Amino acid sequence: MKSKAMVLAAFNRPLEAREFPIPKLEEGQVLVKIKAAGICGSDVHMWKGEDPRTPLPIILGHEGVGTVADVKGKRNTADGLQVNEGDLILWNRGISCGMCFACKVLKEPSLCQNRKVYGINMPCSRPPYLNGCYSEYILLTADTDIFRILGDIDAAVMVSSSCSGATIAHGFDMINQKVGDTVVVQGPGPLGVYAVAFAKKLGASKVVVIGGSPSRLGICEEMGAITLNRHETTVDERREFIMDITGGRGADVVVEAVGSKGAVEEGIKLLRHSGVYLSTGFAQPAGMEQIDFYKDVVSKNIRIQGVWVSDTRHTWQAINLMMENPDAFSKIITHRFSLDEANDALEVMASRTALKAVIEIQ
Amino acid sequence: MKSKAMVLAAFNRPLEAREFPIPKLEEGQVLVKIKAAGICGSDVHMWKGEDPRTPLPIILGHEGVGTVADVKGKRNTADGLQVNEGDLILWNRGISCGMCFACKVLKEPSLCQNRKVYGINMPCSRPPYLNGCYSEYILLTADTDIFRILGDIDAAVMVSSSCSGATIAHGFDMINQKVGDTVVVQGPGPLGVYAVAFAKKLGASKVVVIGGSPSRLGICEEMGAITLNRHETTVDERREFIMDITGGRGADVVVEAVGSKGAVEEGIKLLRHSGVYLSTGFAQPAGMEQIDFYKDVVSKNIRIQGVWVSDTRHTWQAINLMMENPDAFSKIITHRFSLDEANDALEVMASRTALKAVIEIQ
Amino acid sequence: MKSKAMVLAAFNRPLEAREFPIPKLEEGQVLVKIKAAGICGSDVHMWKGEDPRTPLPIILGHEGVGTVADVKGKRNTADGLQVNEGDLILWNRGISCGMCFACKVLKEPSLCQNRKVYGINMPCSRPPYLNGCYSEYILLTADTDIFRILGDIDAAVMVSSSCSGATIAHGFDMINQKVGDTVVVQGPGPLGVYAVAFAKKLGASKVVVIGGSPSRLGICEEMGAITLNRHETTVDERREFIMDITGGRGADVVVEAVGSKGAVEEGIKLLRHSGVYLSTGFAQPAGMEQIDFYKDVVSKNIRIQGVWVSDTRHTWQAINLMMENPDAFSKIITHRFSLDEANDALEVMASRTALKAVIEIQ
Amino acid sequence: MKSKAMVLAAFNRPLEAREFPIPKLEEGQVLVKIKAAGICGSDVHMWKGEDPRTPLPIILGHEGVGTVADVKGKRNTADGLQVNEGDLILWNRGISCGMCFACKVLKEPSLCQNRKVYGINMPCSRPPYLNGCYSEYILLTADTDIFRILGDIDAAVMVSSSCSGATIAHGFDMINQKVGDTVVVQGPGPLGVYAVAFAKKLGASKVVVIGGSPSRLGICEEMGAITLNRHETTVDERREFIMDITGGRGADVVVEAVGSKGAVEEGIKLLRHSGVYLSTGFAQPAGMEQIDFYKDVVSKNIRIQGVWVSDTRHTWQAINLMMENPDAFSKIITHRFSLDEANDALEVMASRTALKAVIEIQ
Repeated sequence: MKSKAMVLAAFNRPLEAREFPIPKLEEGQVLVKIKAAGICGSDVHMWKGEDPRTPLPIILGHEGVGTVADVKGKRNTADGLQVNEGDLILWNRGISCGMCFACKVLKEPSLCQNRKVYGINMPCSRPPYLNGCYSEYILLTADTDIFRILGDIDAAVMVSSSCSGATIAHGFDMINQKVGDTVVVQGPGPLGVYAVAFAKKLGASKVVVIGGSPSRLGICEEMGAITLNRHETTVDERREFIMDITGGRGADVVVEAVGSKGAVEEGIKLLRHSGVYLSTGFAQPAGMEQIDFYKDVVSKNIRIQGVWVSDTRHTWQAINLMMENPDAFSKIITHRFSLDEANDALEVMASRTALKAVIEIQ
Repeated sequence: MKSKAMVLAAFNRPLEAREFPIPKLEEGQVLVKIKAAGICGSDVHMWKGEDPRTPLPIILGHEGVGTVADVKGKRNTADGLQVNEGDLILWNRGISCGMCFACKVLKEPSLCQNRKVYGINMPCSRPPYLNGCYSEYILLTADTDIFRILGDIDAAVMVSSSCSGATIAHGFDMINQKVGDTVVVQGPGPLGVYAVAFAKKLGASKVVVIGGSPSRLGICEEMGAITLNRHETTVDERREFIMDITGGRGADVVVEAVGSKGAVEEGIKLLRHSGVYLSTGFAQPAGMEQIDFYKDVVSKNIRIQGVWVSDTRHTWQAINLMMENPDAFSKIITHRFSLDEANDALEVMASRTALKAVIEIQ
Repeated sequence: MKSKAMVLAAFNRPLEAREFPIPKLEEGQVLVKIKAAGICGSDVHMWKGEDPRTPLPIILGHEGVGTVADVKGKRNTADGLQVNEGDLILWNRGISCGMCFACKVLKEPSLCQNRKVYGINMPCSRPPYLNGCYSEYILLTADTDIFRILGDIDAAVMVSSSCSGATIAHGFDMINQKVGDTVVVQGPGPLGVYAVAFAKKLGASKVVVIGGSPSRLGICEEMGAITLNRHETTVDERREFIMDITGGRGADVVVEAVGSKGAVEEGIKLLRHSGVYLSTGFAQPAGMEQIDFYKDVVSKNIRIQGVWVSDTRHTWQAINLMMENPDAFSKIITHRFSLDEANDALEVMASRTALKAVIEIQ
Repeated sequence: MKSKAMVLAAFNRPLEAREFPIPKLEEGQVLVKIKAAGICGSDVHMWKGEDPRTPLPIILGHEGVGTVADVKGKRNTADGLQVNEGDLILWNRGISCGMCFACKVLKEPSLCQNRKVYGINMPCSRPPYLNGCYSEYILLTADTDIFRILGDIDAAVMVSSSCSGATIAHGFDMINQKVGDTVVVQGPGPLGVYAVAFAKKLGASKVVVIGGSPSRLGICEEMGAITLNRHETTVDERREFIMDITGGRGADVVVEAVGSKGAVEEGIKLLRHSGVYLSTGFAQPAGMEQIDFYKDVVSKNIRIQGVWVSDTRHTWQAINLMMENPDAFSKIITHRFSLDEANDALEVMASRTALKAVIEIQ
């Protein structure tokens, strides 16, 4: 049996369709027939060779949902259900070592220095080859954490809960939002849309999104956010708006979900004294931010919290959020492609035409 | 100018209508024309002489909403708005001293040993007399924390946010609920209804209410809860149900909102390992609970958290919750009375005919 | 090559000396020459058949320190050091599965339902046999978390950091003690002595120990605790004492480290409002505790926290504590035996003659 | 009766000795005979007109200890003791309003926008005049939080617990340090010395101080810190040292206690993944810090926490810390002056000759 997959063999070149043998499963391994694979912004960076970790050749795709084609031995999901052939599943995209200081003493497996990630740092040059989601099949190791998706849900909608959804869950997991909080989200991309959803779900009374794309802002509005178009407002006007709706205090939480230079400098000034700035968007270098520590950090008693990827706990939270209202999230998916069209999918993400593109495989 | 008020002059006797002179305001004091006063379960206990703190004579009523009739000097609300004549306001029912260990070192003013509470431990035997809400007017001290209610909202619906709403807010403020949590609420009274609302608002995916009154359970269902009627199910069946919907793990949080003997013994067994038991309902003595520490606390790594009344922070949270969806809470109000009918209002609460009775004053 | 070990083959019968073949190591396994094995109170319960989990036959002993005799492949400690032949090491006594809800979503591996523990639930009836510390050698699995002990330290002193030390670390890890806190410890056994040490190390200004053994209380005094002999004081006198030294407020934290009936009932009344009761001592059933929820939990806003065993994070904390002052802890070791004398070691623990007995192997 | 005081009447000019009438006390006020007044670095900035809040004329001095000369009515300390004539007391230097959002909803009175501070924003131009500690007497308002100092302690040693001690307490109160942590302190001034003391008291195994003054570093060493002289080491060498003693991971906590440009840029790189950067030293503007968010905040999951002044809770913690070991802190006091020599005291602080100068009054 063989699996077709789209392979990145050289940076800045189109992915190539290849066929790989499907290896014989070892104890605990799970072979998954991919139904949907999300195109993440990081995939574009990898494709362009901007991410130094990228091994070649590699099957891209770290966001996947699929059905169990085969399982060797008894496997359970992280929430204790048995994994059977035919189950619709989603898995934690990273595999942490479970033995290091981050995994065992800090209990922060997302910081594991040995963390392997499907479609990001696992090449396809040696068995079991099938380590990415732009593929008919993926082979999950025995130590990959799995969740079953119950109910009749569009697989394409679910994919991002394992990446941007989980990252945002990680951020909110570190703070303790309260009923009545005002949350500002910088950037209405996939991270930002999840930030709106988590903020609302965890008690925020008002969520304000700052962004430049009317269509993306429209999706945020449908999820209950107030939006500010940065092409139609000045930095000062936006700050004044936030002050107005918070009785002059500023936002309780600001979520940075853009990762571009200058974001922090605007965002941090929107906080109330003792507020929290969650920085989630810097997935690759973007230069230096200029921070006036006296004025914007110390005299305001501000907390800045960097948020790096996620672990199984956060994937679970994102799945739970998603399952309650998949319709709301379905609008994120602006483009759908077949596996053969993977290069087109990368293109629409690279050009920022798409909010979220997904490869669907019958 | 005079104010009519309903006075508890002797335990177990009807409240008496009396007239009090309205004192001249001192700096910072606020005279409020009461629009709605909630009848709390505690009022019934006080009426019957079951609460040893009760001074006589007293104007009952610690849950109030009203309009500002007069204000001496400049007063701000706790969220920084100016208090003006005509404003619709709600206030923190307790006045903590702001100087003791609980207030200043622990920062838990609800534990202040000098805490005065309108309608609970402030008699009407000396000026300024008007210290309770079963009255045309109440006089708020300069150190009472006030909130303005913006928008066109039924005052009767708001009253409980200063008591049961705030108490439940206090409980949830001490824990850190996560998206996807399953919360069980024992008791569908006012505390329980607020527990459903807070649990949902703070990320719970499933909320289950255990109770005996179909009408009360019905209100919880309308707020999104699953309900279990304890007259139609056994303790074992209820436990089995909770285990079933949590993959055999048990609930993440159980909120005790009944305060009757045996509640803890059932509730604690519904928790997953490392779960949290919030006990909010024991407002007066109810005998001993039997706890197997080995089995139900230590070997399960359980947290039991007692929740005693609330402070201004929690009132703010409850108001915020309420303001987002007053319609949902309007169903709690099953009975409305005039001030003259205060004794009838106490009766329907005493007989448990009412879920919540409110006195409305034109 | 063979290893002698002391085997529990039948409950209530002396352990028998047996010889086991030392298996060929598999990848990641570590063969350890035991230098010191602690006798835990739990060992006595297992010996007497009071712990239903005990498989027979079994090599007892879950607290061990030893030198690496052999290691297959490259192994690192949990804090990132390479494990080499000759290293003095200590390991986490439990092996959690790393895949279940407790391990991956709750991040509380001590609650893993698949947790295997050396000397407690791993029999010696099949390879690799050497699963307990009352033995010349123990074979550590590839997923056992290991720490190196640097410096010239008495191995016998270190053993308890993997059991009672780690359990107490777990308890203090869940609370947030402050400088100036008063901590009461119920019970001056090994758990209690660690509670004194952790409380002092984490900011307590005053630590009071309640116990019945003058020699054990003496050790606590040497660590800086105030002691109250329960044979020479009444419950009321002890409560009065605690109130006196806390300005009438009560203790900030009470650590239950006895596990006998009635402990909670006394201890909970020693707390200040909003204090924390850490229950660590109930390692086996001890009947029902009677708790007045109104008076002692709810109206005081108390937190009761059960503490169940520990994980690698806590073992690391206990080792760190120990390494700073091994001399202080050396007094805990009241009796030392050879491997052949294992039955004598159990006897002195069973008779409560010893505070801590250790088997030492040359 | 009159009180002599040293008054700042014009910036950059010597303080002038003046006499003020001692007003008749109002209910709750306390007249204090100053025994010791600390010279804070902020006093130097105010003297030079660098702090825009400074009203003129003003009696400087916000760190004071003294004996109660008179008290009107019944006053209690924050920990519940009665305040009597002759008591040695220390008080919270700030008076928060107790009514605003920061005070009542956030429970962070140090962020109160109405906060008055003795010797900082309370002028001496109108009764009760005596609002600073460079004076024979100070008059404490009824809402000032007071602590009694029990035992025979050098008043000069205690003064800084109400300012730098409390600020550092505030910082550590927001994090949850663990046994075994490595803490780096940038700057061995009064803030830094307190940071060493708090870090040790709250569980740190290793504390490293970076500074330029051998005498100040020497004091830190006596308190148990390892020190690095920044004139004798490069940034790279210091980073390498921290990595070496933490197994290559980096420090768990870094405390910035210098407030000069570039501090953050060095300090943040000393952290392990998921570490905490406590910024306490920026009491006045110091320009922009350059932060690489991708590299130093997000990809490392770092928390940066600004720390602004303190409240009564923190003063209590600092007093408790101080009381346990006043000798250790006595070395901070490098210069002692009489009240008449207040200008000399400011000079030695301005020239950085002194670590801490104190005015003592017989």
